[in-house]
Amino acid sequence: MKKENFAHLECSLARTLDVVGGWWTLLIIRDLFYGIDTFGRLCRDLGVARNILADRLSKLQEKGVIEKRLPGEGSGQGGYRLTPKGEDLFQIVMALVAWGDRWEAPKGPPVELRHNKDGHRARPIIVCAECGEALTPKNVRPLRGPGARRPMALPLPLRPMKK
Amino acid sequence: MKKENFAHLECSLARTLDVVGGWWTLLIIRDLFYGIDTFGRLCRDLGVARNILADRLSKLQEKGVIEKRLPGEGSGQGGYRLTPKGEDLFQIVMALVAWGDRWEAPKGPPVELRHNKDGHRARPIIVCAECGEALTPKNVRPLRGPGARRPMALPLPLRPMKK
Repeated sequence: MKKENFAHLECSLARTLDVVGGWWTLLIIRDLFYGIDTFGRLCRDLGVARNILADRLSKLQEKGVIEKRLPGEGSGQGGYRLTPKGEDLFQIVMALVAWGDRWEAPKGPPVELRHNKDGHRARPIIVCAECGEALTPKNVRPLRGPGARRPMALPLPLRPMKK
Repeated sequence: MKKENFAHLECSLARTLDVVGGWWTLLIIRDLFYGIDTFGRLCRDLGVARNILADRLSKLQEKGVIEKRLPGEGSGQGGYRLTPKGEDLFQIVMALVAWGDRWEAPKGPPVELRHNKDGHRARPIIVCAECGEALTPKNVRPLRGPGARRPMALPLPLRPMKK
C-alpha cells in the first residue's frame, strides 16, 4: 500500500491521519479497547495478514499510541495496551462508530454501547467542553492558531463555514 | 493503492472506514466544511493528484456523502457540497482534529475553532446525548446490537472494557 504523506498540510486532522489514518489501524485500536490485546487474538478477530498486523502494531508503538503489556497483565501471554495517548483515541472511535450506526446500519447497530451504571444506551455527540453546546459547521469557524508556522498556502476562510 | 475491504467485519467502525477511511477522503470533507468546494481549489489546497481527487470525489458521490452543487451556489464554477450524510461527518472531523491538537501539535493548534457567537475557543469532547456524561472506555461497554446478523466470529466481551 502506498503511504500518503500529509506532513506538508498544516492541520491537526492531517497529523492525526498520519498516525491512525491507515487501513486497519483504528480497528486495532477498537479491539484493544474491547480487551482483544494479543497478536493472535487481533489476527483472528480482524482476519488481517500477520505481516500487516505486525507492521501496524510496530508503527503504533513508534508513535507512542500502544506499548507492550507487562507480564501477567491483560489476557494471554504477551500483548499490547493503549498508552494515555492511545486511550485518548476513544473519542475518535466513538465518533466513527456513531456515524456508521446512523448512516450505514439499516438494520440497527451491530454493537450497542451501554453505560455501565444504569445500562442506558450511549448516544455519542460532540459538544464544546467549555460551554456544552453541540458543535456544528454552523456555530464554529476556523482561525489561524498559535501552531501555524507559516502563512497558509491557501488562507483558510475567516468567515463562518458555509452551509 | 490496495483498497482493504472491511465488509466481513460486523462493526459500524468498519463500515464508516469503508466510506471515509481512504487517504485524502477526510481531508476533502474538511475542505468542503471550510468552503473549499471546487475541483481546482481542492486540488491546489491539498496538493493531491487530479486523478486521485477525481476518484475520491466520485466515490463520495456514490456513497451519498457529497453531491454536485447547483449552479450559482457556493464559490466558483461547478463544485461539490456535502449532503446531510456528509455534514454529519463534522463530528468525526472534530474528534480527529481535537486529538491532533492534543498530541501532535507541540507548538499549539495550527488552526483554532472559535464559536461564532462570542469567539471563545471550541474544545470538542464526546458526551452521551442522553445523560451528558463524557464517554470514556471506563463508563461504557459494548453489547450485541439489533443489527448483528450472525453470532460474531469472536464474541465481543460482555464485560466492561478493560483498562
